[in-house]
Amino acid sequence: MSAALSPLAPSHYPDLPPIEGVRFATAEAGIRYKNRTDVLLVALDAGTQAAGVLTRSKCPSAPVDWCRTVLKKGTARGLVVNSGNANAFTGQTGAQAVQQTAQIAAQALGCAPDDILLASTGVIGEPLDASKFEGVLQACLNRAAPTPWIEPARAIMTTDTFPKVATKTLKIDGVTVTLNGIAKGAGMIAPDMATMLSFIFTDAPIGSEALQTLLSRATKTSFNAITVDSDTSTSDTLLLFATGAAAKRGCPTITNPADRRLSAFRKALDGMLLDLAKQIIRDGEGARHFVAITVEGAKSANSAKIIGKSVADSPLFKTAIAGEDANWGRIVAAIGKAGEPADRDRLAIWFGPHRVAVHGARDQGYDEATVSAYMKNQEIDIKIELGLGKGKFTVYTCDLTKEYVEINGDYRS
Amino acid sequence: MSAALSPLAPSHYPDLPPIEGVRFATAEAGIRYKNRTDVLLVALDAGTQAAGVLTRSKCPSAPVDWCRTVLKKGTARGLVVNSGNANAFTGQTGAQAVQQTAQIAAQALGCAPDDILLASTGVIGEPLDASKFEGVLQACLNRAAPTPWIEPARAIMTTDTFPKVATKTLKIDGVTVTLNGIAKGAGMIAPDMATMLSFIFTDAPIGSEALQTLLSRATKTSFNAITVDSDTSTSDTLLLFATGAAAKRGCPTITNPADRRLSAFRKALDGMLLDLAKQIIRDGEGARHFVAITVEGAKSANSAKIIGKSVADSPLFKTAIAGEDANWGRIVAAIGKAGEPADRDRLAIWFGPHRVAVHGARDQGYDEATVSAYMKNQEIDIKIELGLGKGKFTVYTCDLTKEYVEINGDYRS
Repeated sequence: MSAALSPLAPSHYPDLPPIEGVRFATAEAGIRYKNRTDVLLVALDAGTQAAGVLTRSKCPSAPVDWCRTVLKKGTARGLVVNSGNANAFTGQTGAQAVQQTAQIAAQALGCAPDDILLASTGVIGEPLDASKFEGVLQACLNRAAPTPWIEPARAIMTTDTFPKVATKTLKIDGVTVTLNGIAKGAGMIAPDMATMLSFIFTDAPIGSEALQTLLSRATKTSFNAITVDSDTSTSDTLLLFATGAAAKRGCPTITNPADRRLSAFRKALDGMLLDLAKQIIRDGEGARHFVAITVEGAKSANSAKIIGKSVADSPLFKTAIAGEDANWGRIVAAIGKAGEPADRDRLAIWFGPHRVAVHGARDQGYDEATVSAYMKNQEIDIKIELGLGKGKFTVYTCDLTKEYVEINGDYRS
Repeated sequence: MSAALSPLAPSHYPDLPPIEGVRFATAEAGIRYKNRTDVLLVALDAGTQAAGVLTRSKCPSAPVDWCRTVLKKGTARGLVVNSGNANAFTGQTGAQAVQQTAQIAAQALGCAPDDILLASTGVIGEPLDASKFEGVLQACLNRAAPTPWIEPARAIMTTDTFPKVATKTLKIDGVTVTLNGIAKGAGMIAPDMATMLSFIFTDAPIGSEALQTLLSRATKTSFNAITVDSDTSTSDTLLLFATGAAAKRGCPTITNPADRRLSAFRKALDGMLLDLAKQIIRDGEGARHFVAITVEGAKSANSAKIIGKSVADSPLFKTAIAGEDANWGRIVAAIGKAGEPADRDRLAIWFGPHRVAVHGARDQGYDEATVSAYMKNQEIDIKIELGLGKGKFTVYTCDLTKEYVEINGDYRS
């Protein structure tokens, strides 16, 4: 990518260990980009359990349609991801391209097409020429290796300015298992979509239904708690694969998501998803500030989330953050428009440790210079106390800068 | 205002005739701005009927609270509007400022405080010093005259680049009556809110309940069909006053909103509100393009409206318009995220006369050069055909430019 690295990028990337039962390779299929990898093949050992969370868009991409169908099996043998073309709004041609891609991968891996999961990210509405995968996927398989994980993270990037990786080890019943995750999200320069893809791999022997429960739950407070620009993608795809290879080392196979032995796994998965979700915000198009908005005292957690998202998606709030302006009046307005229970005269608002408003008016102790100095931080914490109940939720977002408009407005003209 | 005139501004302003029973004057109260008028007093003859539509924000301004209460009377003798300070999120001080203002105006006009309607627009969270109106309102009344209407339209501006006025004459039962309207909205440079105020005056003798019905109905497809940046104000106020002076010229007094003799009035009011609403979009912060999005074939009109607003509020759609990019993929994504019934494979999308997508894929006849040329127009018409039912709605919006970010981000820092 020619874009400058996001100023919010992590200072280093962790080194991800192998996951037994997972091998991969990337290649240059020349779908849209030149001189960079744009296709990823992941080979999964037989018996791998799979779960997924897909976009709720009413206009999903062809690969999302495909995943929704084949995920019902609960097992998978391969994953193919391409960047540069989302294969979305491509009609019957798109469905055919998906089938053809699955067939090419299945032939290489010696499995059935519905053992293959697919994801695509990039331009919408352009037909995807699946014949470009012919030969490429077999060549990937021939080179497939269990490391280095930074390569798949790079191959799935579109306008991201950095690859997004995370790893955790934990114990299940005394046996060490590993979770590795990669993601891509809202980059700079000319994207057609703020598409979000993430893939998580583990060697833990956990059944697909339990995986699905854990994944859906973890998504609520991570990927479903972030917003760059309020625009839901046609292609959002989060997949979790468990090879079960740790069973050979004595790890018990668990199928009940409520099994107490999963507590460390659940915590690790929750943490990983939140980590990757935050990385996407850090690479938000044009982002210069990372903002966490915590709403407390709402009637319910869902009410807190709606109010938090209303603030996070408000262009006036986001431009104020870009301008390093502690403009809490815009927070009040965004709370007011959310449609959820809120009592103006019980509201209190904090920027970091500084309470700026309380009892429906500006805080008596408000000091403009102190709060303005706080706004210059790269990371801004905002707390909104509604004083109505016990509902709480944190939403993560970034600011809206001129660069965002430039990236998204100057694309084709 | 020091901002350059919006390129979408009208080429001339109509000359508004007097409305019998309505007199006004403006003054410089020095609330925030220097060397410009910032307060408006309108004196209304006894018997004037009143109706209003107010923001649904859960955090309304003190004047909005006031109007909601006194509008129940259905009559009014005066209107006071100030710009520069919204008197919103000002706690008990704000409520006191409202009472004080009403008392000052009532004393000048010789009526009760609850005969006075109030509106404020400007910064949120700053206490409003109502003592600044002391003397000023009496002086206004001494100078009050039935013209020129451009003056009140200017006095209520905040960061608007042009005053917004409209006039219509029509007949009720053979008697000519007049409707005059003014509005302010989403300007350039440093606003705290995209506040919307509009005031309509007529000499027609129509009862307040009928006025309310007509006004609420007309609002749905005009002021409630526009969006600059999806941020609902704490202060939105639309008031309609009918002095009834035309009764002296033989105009019948009408109290039933369904009365057939009101058909011309209803049509004129609908047209005026839409005219003023469109003027606000033309003065949208940083706007360079005026966009009308018509959604047809939806399950219901409300469903069409939700889908239209989802497109109109999408930052990716708005930046594409700014970039003069016919990026219909972003329209598909915004339809998909709206949550309303939509079938990807029945969708068709037009930019002006050019159909760019049909049957869930790009139109075979799509010609990039032709559509790109169309996107250079200042006025862009977009049609979305869902193919599901008969629901139809048109939403009006503008593009999202770097100037919007500049106006709203560089405010206080």
